[in-house]
Order: sequence, then structure tokens, then C-alpha cells
Amino acid sequence: MAPKILITNDDGIDAPGIKALAKILKPLGTVYTVAPSGERSAAAHSITFNHPLRVQHINKTSVAVDGTPTDCVMFGVYGLLNSKRPDLVVSGINNGPNLGDDITYSGTVSAALEGTLLKIPSIAISMGDRKNCKYMAGAEYIRYLCRKILKEGLPGNVFLNVNIPNVARSRIKGIIISKQGKRIYRDMFLKRLDPRGRSYYWLGGMEPSYEKENGTDFEAIERNMIAVTPLHYDLTDYPAMTLLKSLEKVKL
Amino acid sequence: MAPKILITNDDGIDAPGIKALAKILKPLGTVYTVAPSGERSAAAHSITFNHPLRVQHINKTSVAVDGTPTDCVMFGVYGLLNSKRPDLVVSGINNGPNLGDDITYSGTVSAALEGTLLKIPSIAISMGDRKNCKYMAGAEYIRYLCRKILKEGLPGNVFLNVNIPNVARSRIKGIIISKQGKRIYRDMFLKRLDPRGRSYYWLGGMEPSYEKENGTDFEAIERNMIAVTPLHYDLTDYPAMTLLKSLEKVKL
Repeated sequence: MAPKILITNDDGIDAPGIKALAKILKPLGTVYTVAPSGERSAAAHSITFNHPLRVQHINKTSVAVDGTPTDCVMFGVYGLLNSKRPDLVVSGINNGPNLGDDITYSGTVSAALEGTLLKIPSIAISMGDRKNCKYMAGAEYIRYLCRKILKEGLPGNVFLNVNIPNVARSRIKGIIISKQGKRIYRDMFLKRLDPRGRSYYWLGGMEPSYEKENGTDFEAIERNMIAVTPLHYDLTDYPAMTLLKSLEKVKL
Repeated sequence: MAPKILITNDDGIDAPGIKALAKILKPLGTVYTVAPSGERSAAAHSITFNHPLRVQHINKTSVAVDGTPTDCVMFGVYGLLNSKRPDLVVSGINNGPNLGDDITYSGTVSAALEGTLLKIPSIAISMGDRKNCKYMAGAEYIRYLCRKILKEGLPGNVFLNVNIPNVARSRIKGIIISKQGKRIYRDMFLKRLDPRGRSYYWLGGMEPSYEKENGTDFEAIERNMIAVTPLHYDLTDYPAMTLLKSLEKVKL
């Protein structure tokens, strides 16, 4: 039987990135698209349970969900596929990079995390730049990676965060297995007044930069390489457990 | 000068947990409350940048934000405190536990993550149970931990996820430095029809259980101990980097 591939994103079901992704993955199996009805960038791993979800069945393999990317993965598995588990979850192709600490805000990456929590091999794919995205440039690499994962799986509880340099296909130099780099944030709030004189705020600021360090996802993209970062969701800082151990003696 | 302590939560500014927290921390410094105007559970690390934020200044040290817990931390630092950095960010006290893999959904924990990204020592505090929360039961321990962090800081890029057993003060047996446990999820979608015959879905399912394992946050709470789990936000799975290294040889 053909593998079942569930795809989602955080740019919304009509975004060009997810359409390119569907096209790229079609030779590998049956592609089910369950994606947010509109843009849900920076949704992180949020889920909707305070209000019900509306879903729009576009056709037998395509559903728009009025929710977050994580909602979409859940609905894909429990709703559309009725708990017949997909063999692979792919999130993307995101319009813009998901590099460094920024991935903690990312709906795209969190959808792959959700797939992993549901014990399905999962991968998030993003373009290294926001403007004039060449979504098909990395098509062969994306297909290669997904075919390999369908065949061999991934290490336990690990999912992949893939960023593709936004350059012509011929300029992509290959794959680097990278680590999550470190952002330097320069956020601020911009205050404005509405026509009725009431204030509101935009989160803004300068484009963040990042710490120069060998082997990071940032560095790979800068070198026109595809950054493949293996991620997990155990946030425990094990070295700090030892440092904090003396707290266990405290009795109040 | 008195330390500046920024508190937030995901249950909303009027929740009893954050009021208890303000009371508990008052002896340690000036407490600034910047919290969502309503409940924002399961907001994870989401941020708002597609629409502007409305904020309501309740008094000089208290602001309700029409946004996520992460928005609140950002507004607290860049807006209310005008980039005069707080000395400590405390998120909570959450109505219900933030244990195991569930923390990836948590707005409470993500607010502490945001504080850490902003290089401020940060701590998330949750009650081990949802019903009849005894928010003041762990008051002395919370004050002890926060005082210690104000004095000594935390290991670099580490924040604390604290869960307090929901029992009388006299039954709390002390602190365990724990690791993030593993959830066993049993989610499902419940389909309903609205009065006009259109379907909608609730995310539901059975209460999740967890894998029995020594040293987890789940186990600590079960033993009526305070679970203190040191967390970080580097999601890189370093062992998997080695396993995947051969991908670097692929040329397409």
C-alpha cells in the first residue's frame, strides 16, 4: 500500500510553499493536506481547546482547519485519517527560515514536534529567506530525505528541522547536519494611536542577528548548504540537575 | 534598590494563582504584573505579530495584555519597564500541572522560556492538580527559590519548571530535582453539530497518563514533593547528529 503522508504548515492551506510540498511528495505516496485556513505564523506549539474547531473538507485528501498547525496534525491523525496513522508528517515549506532559538516560536517546527509526540516520523522544512522563495529548488533533496525516512525511520523521539537556502537549484551545495544556533534578539514595542486616540502596540524591532559559531543552522544556510538539524523535545538540562541538587536538602 | 520582579501567567490577570504569586513575592521586591486579559492556556510560545496588542494599564505596576504569555513578558520588559530589565521573571501559579512533554504546550512554561531568551533568570510555577488549588501551600518554598535566584542567578540559559503538589503545607515533603517525564497521550476529536447542522470538533479524549520512570517530575508530585526541573531551549539532539552524519555525503 502507498505510504500515507500528512502535510501541514503555518502559512495557511493556500500558501505556495505547501502546494510545492504536495507536488514534491506526490511520487512517494498519498499526500493528505491538513493546514490552517489562514496564516498562523508564530503559533508555536499552541493548541485550541477553549473553543471548537471548524474544519472545511476541500476534497478527500485536503482539509482546512480554523486552528493552529498543531491542531492540524491532531485533526489529520484523529479526524481525517481516523487514527489510521500516517507514515510521515511533513510541515512546510515555510515562507522564511526557522533557525536558531527562533524555532521555539515556530508553528512549522511545532507541527513536526506534534507528529513526533504521536510517534510518527516528522520533518519541518523552511526556506532560508522570506522573499522570492524558490520552493522547488530543494525538491530533490526534500524527496530524498522523505523517502529515506519512510524507509528507515528516524532515531527515537527525534525529528528533523530542515532549512533550504533560497538559491537556484544549481547553487545548493549539499547537506550539513547542524545544531540549533543562538539568536541575538533586538525586539521592541512600537506604540501607535488608533483613530479614536486609544493606544495599541506592535511587536517589532530590528532584524535579529545571531552568534557566529561553527556547525550551526545559520552557518549552513549562509554557505548555501541545506541545514538538517535533529531535534528532540526533552527540555531537561541534565548538567543543571547536578548543580541544583543541594536544593533537595532544603526543609521549610 | 529593591529587585524588580515581573510576573505573568496563562490563566489571565484575574486568576487566583497570579494573585497568590504577587502576595508571595511582595517581600522580595517590587512586583510588576503583566498578564493576559483572559485565559490563554496551551498558548505555548506563541507571539502576536499579525495584529496589534491592546494593553490596559490597571495601575503603575499592573497591566493586562490582549495577547499571549510570551507577549506579556516582552511587553513587561520593553513596554512597562521600558527596557529597564527585571531581575526575575516568574510565571504562574498555574491552575494545574505542567509536567512531562505537556510543557511544550504550556503558556506558563513558555513565559519563563521567553524571560530566559531575554537573559533574565526565570521560573515557571504550577500546581500539581487542577481542582481546589491550594496556591499558598508552597508559599515558603516559592519565596525561598526566588530569593535564592535573585541572589545567585541560574546556570546559563537554564530556567526552572516548578510543580507544587496540591496538598496542605504540612504534607509537602520538600524538593526533588527532577527530569521531564514522558506523556502517554490518548487524544481524540469529538464531532458535534451546531444548531444549523454544521459540524465542529472539540479536541478531547481520555486524561493522558505517563510512563513510570524514576526521577521524573510526575513521580515527584506523586510523592508530594515539589518538582524542580531545570530546562533549556536548545532542542538539538546531539547523539542524532552523529547518526545522521552520512547524509552529508549525498549529492543530488
